[in-house]
Amino acid sequence: METITVVKLAEKFNLIQDYWQPRIAGELNHSYVKLAKIKGEFVWHHHELEDELFLVVKGRLIIQLKTGDIILNPGEFVIIPKGIEHRPVAEEEVQIILIEPKTTLNTGNLHNEHTTTADWI
Amino acid sequence: METITVVKLAEKFNLIQDYWQPRIAGELNHSYVKLAKIKGEFVWHHHELEDELFLVVKGRLIIQLKTGDIILNPGEFVIIPKGIEHRPVAEEEVQIILIEPKTTLNTGNLHNEHTTTADWI
Repeated sequence: METITVVKLAEKFNLIQDYWQPRIAGELNHSYVKLAKIKGEFVWHHHELEDELFLVVKGRLIIQLKTGDIILNPGEFVIIPKGIEHRPVAEEEVQIILIEPKTTLNTGNLHNEHTTTADWI
Repeated sequence: METITVVKLAEKFNLIQDYWQPRIAGELNHSYVKLAKIKGEFVWHHHELEDELFLVVKGRLIIQLKTGDIILNPGEFVIIPKGIEHRPVAEEEVQIILIEPKTTLNTGNLHNEHTTTADWI
């Protein structure tokens, strides 16, 4: 996609109504920039081959790891390396930016009722 | 680097004193997340093989393109596709997040007095 478009995060997040359904807001170098609203507990999973960046825009994100919890507030990011089991948890609604390869499935190594593909927004 | 560290953008930007000197704040999938403070006019350049993401954290960034100017305010990002000539301009100090392949040189196709390598912060 060679179109050069300014993406305004607040406008895009306003369009997202459903939780745990990442939307694609940009692509670069074989990766997607995804936006998601999340609330509640996700499933434990890992990504076999892909590192995943979580940047919090709004709210407080907990990422549970087998070694302990990570807390992320707005303006904070973490990169979960490939192979690391993790479980995002949001007690209240959280808005996040995800950056990950196009091949990344939201549930990583699992295919279950949480598995979804991302559409452009 | 398998260490899982929360990166607080505000803390990192506070450590940056110099303009046009990107610092590496994270790595994922052969790309770096870089933070930079910029002010003034950069040079026209392009990246032969690499798309580049600019996300504005603070201030107002102008990215001049041959087809016109792009204006980015905080909470807005743009991806400049590979091969596209661009020139960042910041009338006042701007704080940006850059995401680009590890191979990306700040001045793209040029090697001049603006060319610099990025250190970790």
